[in-house]
Amino acid sequence: MPNSAESALEYLTMHQERYLLELQEFLRIPSISSDPTHRAEMQEAASWLAGRLRVAGFDQVRVFSTNGQPIVYGEKLAGAPSAPTVLIYGHYDVQRAEPLEDWESEPFEPVIRGNNLYARGATDMKGQIMASIGAAESLLQAGNLPLKVKFLVEGEEEVGSSHLAGFLSSNLDRLRCDVVLNPDAGMPKRDTPAIVYSLRGGAGFELHVFGPAQDLHSGTFGGVVHNPIHALSQLVAGLHDANGRITLPDFYESVRSLGAAERKQLARLPMNEEHYLEQSGAPALWGEPDFTALERTGARPSLDVVQLRAGQPKSAIPASATAYISFRLVPDQKPEEVHQQFIEYLRQQAPPTISWELEFLRGHPPVLVDRNSVAAQAMSRALANAWHKEPLFHRVGGSIPAVAMFQEILGVDSVLTGFALPEDNLHGPNEKLHLPTWRKGTEALVHFFTSLSGP
Amino acid sequence: MPNSAESALEYLTMHQERYLLELQEFLRIPSISSDPTHRAEMQEAASWLAGRLRVAGFDQVRVFSTNGQPIVYGEKLAGAPSAPTVLIYGHYDVQRAEPLEDWESEPFEPVIRGNNLYARGATDMKGQIMASIGAAESLLQAGNLPLKVKFLVEGEEEVGSSHLAGFLSSNLDRLRCDVVLNPDAGMPKRDTPAIVYSLRGGAGFELHVFGPAQDLHSGTFGGVVHNPIHALSQLVAGLHDANGRITLPDFYESVRSLGAAERKQLARLPMNEEHYLEQSGAPALWGEPDFTALERTGARPSLDVVQLRAGQPKSAIPASATAYISFRLVPDQKPEEVHQQFIEYLRQQAPPTISWELEFLRGHPPVLVDRNSVAAQAMSRALANAWHKEPLFHRVGGSIPAVAMFQEILGVDSVLTGFALPEDNLHGPNEKLHLPTWRKGTEALVHFFTSLSGP
Repeated sequence: MPNSAESALEYLTMHQERYLLELQEFLRIPSISSDPTHRAEMQEAASWLAGRLRVAGFDQVRVFSTNGQPIVYGEKLAGAPSAPTVLIYGHYDVQRAEPLEDWESEPFEPVIRGNNLYARGATDMKGQIMASIGAAESLLQAGNLPLKVKFLVEGEEEVGSSHLAGFLSSNLDRLRCDVVLNPDAGMPKRDTPAIVYSLRGGAGFELHVFGPAQDLHSGTFGGVVHNPIHALSQLVAGLHDANGRITLPDFYESVRSLGAAERKQLARLPMNEEHYLEQSGAPALWGEPDFTALERTGARPSLDVVQLRAGQPKSAIPASATAYISFRLVPDQKPEEVHQQFIEYLRQQAPPTISWELEFLRGHPPVLVDRNSVAAQAMSRALANAWHKEPLFHRVGGSIPAVAMFQEILGVDSVLTGFALPEDNLHGPNEKLHLPTWRKGTEALVHFFTSLSGP
Repeated sequence: MPNSAESALEYLTMHQERYLLELQEFLRIPSISSDPTHRAEMQEAASWLAGRLRVAGFDQVRVFSTNGQPIVYGEKLAGAPSAPTVLIYGHYDVQRAEPLEDWESEPFEPVIRGNNLYARGATDMKGQIMASIGAAESLLQAGNLPLKVKFLVEGEEEVGSSHLAGFLSSNLDRLRCDVVLNPDAGMPKRDTPAIVYSLRGGAGFELHVFGPAQDLHSGTFGGVVHNPIHALSQLVAGLHDANGRITLPDFYESVRSLGAAERKQLARLPMNEEHYLEQSGAPALWGEPDFTALERTGARPSLDVVQLRAGQPKSAIPASATAYISFRLVPDQKPEEVHQQFIEYLRQQAPPTISWELEFLRGHPPVLVDRNSVAAQAMSRALANAWHKEPLFHRVGGSIPAVAMFQEILGVDSVLTGFALPEDNLHGPNEKLHLPTWRKGTEALVHFFTSLSGP
């Protein structure tokens, strides 16, 4: 172990309690980006984070206003003049906490039970941000930060990172770097460190079905008017065939097929059918029979209606019905192509007894990064160092729109890892952070910084 | 025109303005029975009504408490000892007003525009109650009420009349009568008076579909877990075939077929396809091709999902999805049979990737009454007298659970009419009452009372 890492790890051990208290403070701020009533808390979370970067010794710390949520920036240009620059990406926003009745404790009142810290955002990703700050700070405070570190933390990851691309484009100099570290990608299993080399993209839509001019008495009109709820149900039901394949015309044409070598490598990951059954609590698994569960989430596209809104608890045929539909896309699918395929599906399938509107909310492309880059190799050594076992290379089903933006706008790849576990319930109730994994993750990032800075 | 009617009609004309002001007062009370936050307003509406009956000169006026909403009663035992007793049934509760943004004026701030009075409950059925009170009061005040009148006005018609049967059973003596007058049945068209001889029954269910143990990240699990929204959509879509027929096993076995004579008589009603298209504002009509639109609403069963509740506007596969499903039934279907057929459908159709629960909320049987009873003939003369044209006999698609209860518990038939027009938007936004029809209806009820009391 290099000396620089050794003293940093000592610093981390000494300040372990303080980091935990700070994380709890951060988690008490309900920074829900999708809820317009939480604008003040978004600002509060950004200010808190900027303050924390200043305390850590970062320079140029600023909270940038955007047309959406604020972006926090700070940098420490340490190390030799030739030392590489790593840009650490994160997001301080969190998902909504509903349904609240499913939480065992208040989502924004962090509670430690056993080895876990429970709160919305604990693992996605305020815990990961604090791990990154801790790793950089410990090296800095121990006098051994061997490279240039830039922090960029946005507040709109959970709502599609709408204002990040604009910020990147107008801050090219400030953000110049050799690689992006993205600790938002999670681990496949406890004690199984991993580097993620592929993320799914996404496309979000609202499908509105319109029937009668207004809500109608279901006695007077039941039997002569096509209920928009029934029409919407037919359209939603028709989106999958009996094998769980998506039925949009030409939908699979641009899906890149998986090679035998990659399938073999993916099969090494400890994520069999049993794993998904256990993690989901579903009565049975579902989906394309020709692919493993891991392949279906990592290398195949999916479609989920995440919300239906229609009608009232009264005896009326509603005038309209709405579905919020979310696609996950894989290379080489493009959100705009899927939009066109969806329109074509509706043209072919929607009955003349209703009318429809398809609203394209947002899209972002899928991502594949080089598994053999210098940074990926450095991360591989760092994870092996912390866990005493080789990390696996992993394709995950989630999306991080920022990764493609860094590729396109800054021209740099990301190295993706993270210390969120599948059982951490990210986006669900009782989200939690597994504290021993979090501490080991912080340690791994110390190794990554030292490993990246040189042999 | 008998003298007794003549002086009553004069009284009505003289007090026309007062009746309109009183109706507006009644409409300002938001007596929404389905909304538990409106309990105080339910009590207020019942008290208001009891006060109004006392002013009209009724005796024994009381507000009876039930386990649900209060029931208002009052009586005037006038006429000769041998004079018949008519029980006037009504309901002072109204439907919810949502979606509020579709109203041109506030639902509980009555406004007159042209010949119409706009407010929730104006036509369904506070206007009809005031017409009945006005008809009885005018005869009473003119000294000519020729029969025994009992008023029974409940507050739970819009939520299934759950506590009415119990009240009838424990007040058999008080409610003894020769016929029930039910003015809640509406007219097929302006200037076309009608007597309704059939109403559809109903059965209400909530279908819950359960998938994963909790909401899941749609990136991590999209493609391996059957989304309960998709499963519910399939089950809802499967409830009708391509011809609009309901697919529950044996569903049509107990549906009584329509005879040629009755179909011919129904065809006289001014309610062709054009009428339904215009009234609904739907892009096209829908439903069983072998029946006319009027037959489909009056003599064929129907099924409408009136509400879907599932998911949140976030990227998650929800743990469950719920549909509120309302059936309209025709003779000789029974709600409990439909319940069993629905369970059988779900057993056959629900996939093993989800679990389900069917909640039976309520049911009430369909109704057929004698078109040639003494009361029906008296009503026929009365309507002809007011409109100078013969009324039509009509089957309507709505349900009034009370009618079957009066048959079963009191052993009396109802004579069903009313002055609500199809364009009055009952249960929808901008509900209204057509004032000239309302006044003519009040007049017709004066004729009905005098006609029923003797030749």
